[in-house]
Amino acid sequence: MQIHPMWELYPEVKNELRETIALIDKEVFIRNKEIEAAILDMLHSGGKLLRPAYTLLFSTFGKDHSPERARSVAAAIELLHTATLIHDDIIDDASSRRKKQSIQSKYGKDVAVYAGDYLFTVVFRILSKQANTVEDISINTKGMERILMGELNQMHLRYKKDMSIRDYLTQISGKTAQLFALACYSGAIEGGNSKAFARNCYYIGSHIGMAFQIIDDVLDYTQSSENFGKPVLEDVRQGIYTAPLIFSLRKENREIKALLEMGSQITQKDAQKIQRFVHESGGMSEAKSMAEKYTRKALKRISKLPDTKEKQIIKEITEKLLMREM
Amino acid sequence: MQIHPMWELYPEVKNELRETIALIDKEVFIRNKEIEAAILDMLHSGGKLLRPAYTLLFSTFGKDHSPERARSVAAAIELLHTATLIHDDIIDDASSRRKKQSIQSKYGKDVAVYAGDYLFTVVFRILSKQANTVEDISINTKGMERILMGELNQMHLRYKKDMSIRDYLTQISGKTAQLFALACYSGAIEGGNSKAFARNCYYIGSHIGMAFQIIDDVLDYTQSSENFGKPVLEDVRQGIYTAPLIFSLRKENREIKALLEMGSQITQKDAQKIQRFVHESGGMSEAKSMAEKYTRKALKRISKLPDTKEKQIIKEITEKLLMREM
Repeated sequence: MQIHPMWELYPEVKNELRETIALIDKEVFIRNKEIEAAILDMLHSGGKLLRPAYTLLFSTFGKDHSPERARSVAAAIELLHTATLIHDDIIDDASSRRKKQSIQSKYGKDVAVYAGDYLFTVVFRILSKQANTVEDISINTKGMERILMGELNQMHLRYKKDMSIRDYLTQISGKTAQLFALACYSGAIEGGNSKAFARNCYYIGSHIGMAFQIIDDVLDYTQSSENFGKPVLEDVRQGIYTAPLIFSLRKENREIKALLEMGSQITQKDAQKIQRFVHESGGMSEAKSMAEKYTRKALKRISKLPDTKEKQIIKEITEKLLMREM
Repeated sequence: MQIHPMWELYPEVKNELRETIALIDKEVFIRNKEIEAAILDMLHSGGKLLRPAYTLLFSTFGKDHSPERARSVAAAIELLHTATLIHDDIIDDASSRRKKQSIQSKYGKDVAVYAGDYLFTVVFRILSKQANTVEDISINTKGMERILMGELNQMHLRYKKDMSIRDYLTQISGKTAQLFALACYSGAIEGGNSKAFARNCYYIGSHIGMAFQIIDDVLDYTQSSENFGKPVLEDVRQGIYTAPLIFSLRKENREIKALLEMGSQITQKDAQKIQRFVHESGGMSEAKSMAEKYTRKALKRISKLPDTKEKQIIKEITEKLLMREM
């Protein structure tokens, strides 16, 4: 399969990612070949594979590092991510995912529910196969739990119209940051590092995840006006506000508030007005500087990692990722 | 909480079940108290708790039996069962479950998806806490996987109009029998029994599960005609046929087949006609004797267990359960 071009510069990582996907292909087995193909399609869709890449990279620091075991943990992280995406699509009634038709829209919610559940069990199978100790499994279980509990706890934010920045941060922390944190942490643990070292990696992952999500949300507002609105328009229609808009709304603007009240009635033209407002009111730059703050925090902690080739790669990809188009 | 009256005769089991539920209460923690209460309500609804009871009973045979660990495994089995029920209700769009409003109908599909996912992680947390070895976890993971894979593989049977007895058996094997089998098997493993012994327990559980489901489906057809139809009517409307009807349909009957073709148009009166047909054509008695066959198989294997007090309890409850109203 095609590994994302961002890894061309790092052939070792690229190779390990390829092996990780090969491992996943071997572990996912469903008698219904159509559903199996749909799941594997998602896993082969050429995404950046950031989460497993961080797991692989952070695993290299320990003295007990085993590439084989690291690939298992990385595979589990990517499968966990995929399972939550499949279930998220049910909830959002999303028709597409990674530029392909989503499993829920192609095969129905029933297949999507069980396909996600099945992947969760594959995650545990892989984790219990590679684990040396019960504690290894326990650590990953707790991380997974935190992610899913995050979803449950923050569900009420999903349609909260007057979301504050604090609500927003809580939400993306549960949604995105925890998974990045788990990716880095479980990589470090796999390598046999101390808990304290792994905790530092956890924070690195968490900061990366926060910055990553804020930037994603900012980029949604930088699309040209024809393209603009696809994701944002849908979000604002459902009352889901992300950082740029939340910051903007701190400035009183009755016209925009009235527009937002219209919910599903919001038109493409209204969305353009909202976009202009977000840019002009300074919401974009405030969101950007919030992302920068998390990026700096991540890079500061990364700088203290032992000086290895992999540290350099972590630094470079994190910079690239978190500085994209800003 | 109230433990089902069927356990009055067996105070030790009753007590262990109470402890198991107390353990679950301690392990399920969600910040959103409304959702937490909804999940705990399901777990306190006064069901028979058969699956955890079998786990507890089968755990007593081994030389390494620990009541504490057995309760953990029993709790995991009940939580796994509950998680699959919550997800099943999404798929069936079920409005009630265990005489209460289902989570999906009360809180929406989003809460139901994540609540089930969360319970899966609690299952793994409990399993990894109690496990002595990675293999212990691995065994349970494989069992869970088989159950969820069963759901995925048999999904296409859900709306298959010309379901054969073979299709039906495949379906209930994945749905009900695997979970009973896992309950007995993981109890036996917890007790430190040999794999061969545990395998025997697995088959006992599987036979019990098969008989249990067939009897449930038979009982649906024995309701008085006013009550009749609630579950069956919904099933036949959706084209889901269970053993009594499938056996009946081996006899040619154009009127009934035409009725069934009407799908969601089937009326209460039609359902009564179908019920009468099922009774008169011998479908009921054929289904009953199929259940009896599985019951006999289970009891034969049970009779070979070591002669203990718990063996006697297993024998008695299995007989009661599988002979109910037949």
